[in-house]
Amino acid sequence: MNKKDKILIIGAGLCGSLLALRLAQRGFEVEVYESRPDLRTTNISAGRSINLALSDRGLKALRLCGMEEKAREFCIPMFGRLMHDAHGKTFSSNYSGRENEFINSISRGNLNALLLDEAEKHDNVTIHFNKQCRTVDIENTVAHFKDYQTKEEFFVHADVIFGSDGAGSSLRKSYISERKFLFSYSQNYLNHGYKELEIPANKMGTHQISKEHLHIWPRGDFMLIALPNMDGSFTVTLFLSYDEGEFNFENLTSEDKITAFFEKEFPDALALIPNIKEEFINNPTGPLGTIKCSPWSYKNKTLLIGDSSHAIVPFYGQGMNASFEDVFVFDEILNQNLETWEAVFKAYQKARKHDTDAIADLAIDNFHEMKDHVANPIFKEKRKIEMDLEKIFPTQYFSKYSLVTFNENIGYNEAMNRGRAQDKALLNLIADNDISTSLEMSIEELEIVLRKVQEETNEILQEDKIAGMNERN
Amino acid sequence: MNKKDKILIIGAGLCGSLLALRLAQRGFEVEVYESRPDLRTTNISAGRSINLALSDRGLKALRLCGMEEKAREFCIPMFGRLMHDAHGKTFSSNYSGRENEFINSISRGNLNALLLDEAEKHDNVTIHFNKQCRTVDIENTVAHFKDYQTKEEFFVHADVIFGSDGAGSSLRKSYISERKFLFSYSQNYLNHGYKELEIPANKMGTHQISKEHLHIWPRGDFMLIALPNMDGSFTVTLFLSYDEGEFNFENLTSEDKITAFFEKEFPDALALIPNIKEEFINNPTGPLGTIKCSPWSYKNKTLLIGDSSHAIVPFYGQGMNASFEDVFVFDEILNQNLETWEAVFKAYQKARKHDTDAIADLAIDNFHEMKDHVANPIFKEKRKIEMDLEKIFPTQYFSKYSLVTFNENIGYNEAMNRGRAQDKALLNLIADNDISTSLEMSIEELEIVLRKVQEETNEILQEDKIAGMNERN
Repeated sequence: MNKKDKILIIGAGLCGSLLALRLAQRGFEVEVYESRPDLRTTNISAGRSINLALSDRGLKALRLCGMEEKAREFCIPMFGRLMHDAHGKTFSSNYSGRENEFINSISRGNLNALLLDEAEKHDNVTIHFNKQCRTVDIENTVAHFKDYQTKEEFFVHADVIFGSDGAGSSLRKSYISERKFLFSYSQNYLNHGYKELEIPANKMGTHQISKEHLHIWPRGDFMLIALPNMDGSFTVTLFLSYDEGEFNFENLTSEDKITAFFEKEFPDALALIPNIKEEFINNPTGPLGTIKCSPWSYKNKTLLIGDSSHAIVPFYGQGMNASFEDVFVFDEILNQNLETWEAVFKAYQKARKHDTDAIADLAIDNFHEMKDHVANPIFKEKRKIEMDLEKIFPTQYFSKYSLVTFNENIGYNEAMNRGRAQDKALLNLIADNDISTSLEMSIEELEIVLRKVQEETNEILQEDKIAGMNERN
Repeated sequence: MNKKDKILIIGAGLCGSLLALRLAQRGFEVEVYESRPDLRTTNISAGRSINLALSDRGLKALRLCGMEEKAREFCIPMFGRLMHDAHGKTFSSNYSGRENEFINSISRGNLNALLLDEAEKHDNVTIHFNKQCRTVDIENTVAHFKDYQTKEEFFVHADVIFGSDGAGSSLRKSYISERKFLFSYSQNYLNHGYKELEIPANKMGTHQISKEHLHIWPRGDFMLIALPNMDGSFTVTLFLSYDEGEFNFENLTSEDKITAFFEKEFPDALALIPNIKEEFINNPTGPLGTIKCSPWSYKNKTLLIGDSSHAIVPFYGQGMNASFEDVFVFDEILNQNLETWEAVFKAYQKARKHDTDAIADLAIDNFHEMKDHVANPIFKEKRKIEMDLEKIFPTQYFSKYSLVTFNENIGYNEAMNRGRAQDKALLNLIADNDISTSLEMSIEELEIVLRKVQEETNEILQEDKIAGMNERN
């Protein structure tokens, strides 16, 4: 590899624009082709979440590129979940017992624009919009594009091609269609789809419900969530089965049914969504899929990065964070000064794949947790104890959520293994009445709980290790 | 659904021919199209294992169709594994402590011919050979075929289409390409491929090594296995990485290297394979992949069954057995007299999918066990105890292998969950010195071991349940 290598990046979304910026900062010649129009001059939100959760792993990667402070200007901190029951009653659950740990609601468009602006400040970066990639000749590193406006088709040759072109990646499709190697690939859909709605700002342009929370209306088989926007509105997302249960996307076809559904299940939310009928009927219903694949690279020629290599469901709020962390990990591999792109690509996948597999699985776990467990008594007891432990022993206890979200120096895989074992330990200690669950525990009592949870967690990890259970997958 | 419905089955392999036979026995009109020539009149073994392991789940399905006794005439019982170390020393390990539990080596061709013969005895079955399915129009249930001999292309319309067309299923590919529904799909390859070789019969036409065993040469990162054939020969299979380790399929390109590899690793096997060089160079190297997908059916029109819906790696000897068991489970659903094919297809997948997912995962477990663990001291200790438990308490103890292989009334998923928990219990009890591992245990000592293993297994299952770990996939 060589600083003069011409690098082609397909896709100028969040991952592609951060990657372009970082490679430019390292001195590479970078050309970026994006299928959509420039979002800084066109309003294009169709089909993509308007706001996203930005947390420590994403911030770590932004910091690497000198973009953390600029991004924070667009952030709305969310300190916990606010659950709404079917009668409109609410209760809150913090994300952490440590005060400095929170996640941020941020506009996808604002953040992407920020990264594009910064990337374009570099002379060694060129970004082309409205150029859709059709296929990639991976052997000869030639990408085939079509210009959306002129309809002209053309080819771009590069020394190395990065596919940061998202869940529907054309580079990944070329891996499948060219059949040059054994390509492991999975696409797994939930039975649930999603639809976005809006709670507008009130007349003063401020938020109608707490903007310091991620709001959840958990209903067991389905749920509604809401994240705040800077203009006082909330983006609301309904997660619902396509075809199962009394209400589902297939049978909610009339305005009456839609209203009846919301009146029964989400009366307080319904009162805040004035255009419910129009939005429900006109906004698209999107699928929720997980994509995993391997290998991510072909020889010294091409690499999948971001969602193109590991699309995940949104329930851990880690999609963007995982893709940003890809750029961080890739940059660490570049620091090793390996001789060839092939060596870099292989070292990158080796360092990264077990972590992106883990966050994909964690996001599915959290789907069940959010729509169901968060309102369950035993789960609430567990969260109460965890908040106390994190508050009183801030350097000694980290819940699974904290490990995944706020401990950016631990990989997702380690966070998953330790977090799952810890959850199992806590739930079993509670179920067996082996630890106190009284509402007001003394520090001494809590310390006993901490030691028992730590001991039990370590024993679970040790027993799994002896049984060779970490070898699976 | 209706007895007069015209049923089209794509693929007359083991699953397709058994399915055709069973549907014919139930009185349906069945047409079967197979891409290969008739194996009863042509020699076609290319690319497929010559012999397979037939065990209780497969026999259960054959029994349903009245074919068990005829199949048993072609069976060679294998009572255990015979391990060969790098110096040619051997030790054996039975599959079960119960004398009546063994698996059978059987010729794929013989068994398939038997099923084709039986199916064709029914007037309501027609089987067409040399007709390759290209695509299926799933909405209109029309399959597009090409005749290999005449090159003629033609269309066949049916009321219902079954795709029993194996891992490369054209019906499954049509599910993907028609994009009529969200199709979850995965193909996962091991880094290992396989190559078949042959140990011929000796001059008297009998077996040169024990025909009562499945032979294994475990070497950690790779292995050789051999299954007996009725003509005195063995079919030998080498499982080896494509590109990792000192020796792999990519670097074993010269006759010298091939011989050096076998001399170092498999000297006793080398002495028995006279045509090693020719066979190694001329026989194809095949990939080892797992395929899962969902849904298996489309409306009341089409269904995937057998390998087309769940191709697995061969290490549990359950590929054919799982496909035969599909036919058994499908037949049970037909007994429910549901009104529509759609209801039948959905009930079938609901009853079956968690079991085929489980055997896919178990087969990967066994890949690691066979190439590696079988020769490990702690694993050998565990197997010794399990054999004793099964021998002394034949109605109370069943190893994971027995649950999967010999307990055809328990689904694969239950066998996996119970078997994995039991393995974990045993390995941890041995590691913690909580149970005696002396070579000669009294019945009283063994009974204590049995109770401890049962208690610990139940506790593991209970703890997993409390932690909600069974909700994951």
